[in-house]
Amino acid sequence: MNSELYKINNVRLSDDGSCVTIIDQTKLPGRTEYLTLKTPEDFFEAIYELKVRGAPAIGICAAFGVFCLARTIDASDYESFIEKFDEYRRYLDSSRPTAVNLSWALNRMRSVAERGRDKPVTEILTLLEAECREIQAEDASMCRAISEYGFSLMKEGDGILTHCNAGPLATSSYGTALGPLLLARERGLNFRVFADETRPLLQGARLTAYELARAGIDVTLICDNMASLVMKNGWIQACFVGCDRVAANGDAANKIGTSGVAILAAHYGIPFYVLGPTSTIDMNCGTGDDIEIELRAPDEIKVKFYEQPMAPEEVKCYNPAFDVTDNSLITGIVTERGICRAPYEKSLGELFGK
Amino acid sequence: MNSELYKINNVRLSDDGSCVTIIDQTKLPGRTEYLTLKTPEDFFEAIYELKVRGAPAIGICAAFGVFCLARTIDASDYESFIEKFDEYRRYLDSSRPTAVNLSWALNRMRSVAERGRDKPVTEILTLLEAECREIQAEDASMCRAISEYGFSLMKEGDGILTHCNAGPLATSSYGTALGPLLLARERGLNFRVFADETRPLLQGARLTAYELARAGIDVTLICDNMASLVMKNGWIQACFVGCDRVAANGDAANKIGTSGVAILAAHYGIPFYVLGPTSTIDMNCGTGDDIEIELRAPDEIKVKFYEQPMAPEEVKCYNPAFDVTDNSLITGIVTERGICRAPYEKSLGELFGK
Repeated sequence: MNSELYKINNVRLSDDGSCVTIIDQTKLPGRTEYLTLKTPEDFFEAIYELKVRGAPAIGICAAFGVFCLARTIDASDYESFIEKFDEYRRYLDSSRPTAVNLSWALNRMRSVAERGRDKPVTEILTLLEAECREIQAEDASMCRAISEYGFSLMKEGDGILTHCNAGPLATSSYGTALGPLLLARERGLNFRVFADETRPLLQGARLTAYELARAGIDVTLICDNMASLVMKNGWIQACFVGCDRVAANGDAANKIGTSGVAILAAHYGIPFYVLGPTSTIDMNCGTGDDIEIELRAPDEIKVKFYEQPMAPEEVKCYNPAFDVTDNSLITGIVTERGICRAPYEKSLGELFGK
Repeated sequence: MNSELYKINNVRLSDDGSCVTIIDQTKLPGRTEYLTLKTPEDFFEAIYELKVRGAPAIGICAAFGVFCLARTIDASDYESFIEKFDEYRRYLDSSRPTAVNLSWALNRMRSVAERGRDKPVTEILTLLEAECREIQAEDASMCRAISEYGFSLMKEGDGILTHCNAGPLATSSYGTALGPLLLARERGLNFRVFADETRPLLQGARLTAYELARAGIDVTLICDNMASLVMKNGWIQACFVGCDRVAANGDAANKIGTSGVAILAAHYGIPFYVLGPTSTIDMNCGTGDDIEIELRAPDEIKVKFYEQPMAPEEVKCYNPAFDVTDNSLITGIVTERGICRAPYEKSLGELFGK
């Protein structure tokens, strides 16, 4: 991935709108395999199995998906069209519960379909295609703006710690948490990055280390439990993480382990920033307690990726995919419209004109 | 492992003193393989490669090892005997730097050899054999006492979080951090355990989960980065961890990630206990800053145990094997002579009659 490549969208709708092509992220970094998604099951499984992942990329893929599926609906009137459309939409929406971007993107598509209720189905399809392509274009421009705001928080010689993957693969183009780092590299800033490997699915090792190393950034991979020592060593000046859903009070759900990083950062007096587009902020969600945390299969911990079972067969596992970082631990929430700071009810509310 | 089996020593000196048998801990839980150690390289590699691990078990294995090697020395006088003995001792001592028990046990063996300087070599060997068997017997009785003190900290319905493995496999018989849990199970206490998997070598998944599940204890395996959420859920009432070296001021080196657990515990108001025999306390070491932290090979993070490389080949890794938990984060240090509390200079000093 050179400095141009990471600007390219990794979730692509075909020109004829019949299918979506993604990089299978579960195969990285060993193999770069492309997958073509066409059926409802293709889209559902790609999202559920994390072949496409990262809150913004999931939203884009679902929007493209519901459009591809809408094209296959055999209906001449709005009522029968929207009935089938909603069936597809709800099915895709059920693939993962935590990232708000999934529902957000599907709801945008639903609103467009509804606005076209007096038009012929072919025209609704034209509106839907424009909308999903717009969602992706907007994401790219939001990522770019987030990257600029994030870059303003960096200085020469910094060490940045990141958790999971919120880079180009998780979004369109630059990414959110990794965007400032890619910009900083382009601009010749001298800095280094520590990437948490992010168990159980190792998005940090497989994706973040891959993206940053390919971009020529000085990146060091660590196990999640090494973050405390790295901070204690004085090597970290800021933490940058993405987010899957931010509540109205600033509580932020992100990949499991993020809240632990935030607590460590607070302990060592290191600023902790959450980066994400405003589409990730859910003003209908009062606090982090209202965010549903996805629980995934124990085998992700016990056997996935391993040559041999890494725990006794009979052992129970608890495998939450996300946790919520309390707003009191967050130094700033970096969006495409600027950097919000505490009190978040006020600063986030202002973003939405409240 | 039933309730009797875990009382059996897992590092055994043969009756004739010619070799040592260990369980190869790197093969657990998939396979229970026994290894026979005879040569200097056998002992060095078994310790370096973590086939035998856990501070007390390393000490016992090294004491047995230096005795086995002493038996092979072809010397009729003390001077030529002790020269070769010291060569073996220093070689074994260099296998791992952090756990103090390794040097402690080897120094005990050296003192015994020195005390026999006016005796024939055969008699020195008799003294050495008695000493290394005594080191193991003492460890078993210390573990039992630590378990009793630790048990006094538990109550009905508790959830206990542990990191890495400080159970029977890491010691002789009960273990240190896991000892109270095994005792509590014998005594019918109702409680449950959350075991951090402990990357990169997964001692928590492979060994702790194995030992506790075999003993019939309700154990749930989690990834290291899930500890924050588990604590936030209210599921943890105390943390029990082992230690590899405790400084005179109470700073405690233990498996990488332990300091992070302690910081999380402090954040959530959960007591955090370090359990270990007094042989782990190094009164010559003023603070944690004086403890050497072993750095291990990047491949332990990048490829070990995996079917496919889990990070790009070119990515740097930082792989410290231990970290130091600041004494201010430690609620109590549980030894065979009682539970020490802050200020630790005073309470630890009193243990050693200072």
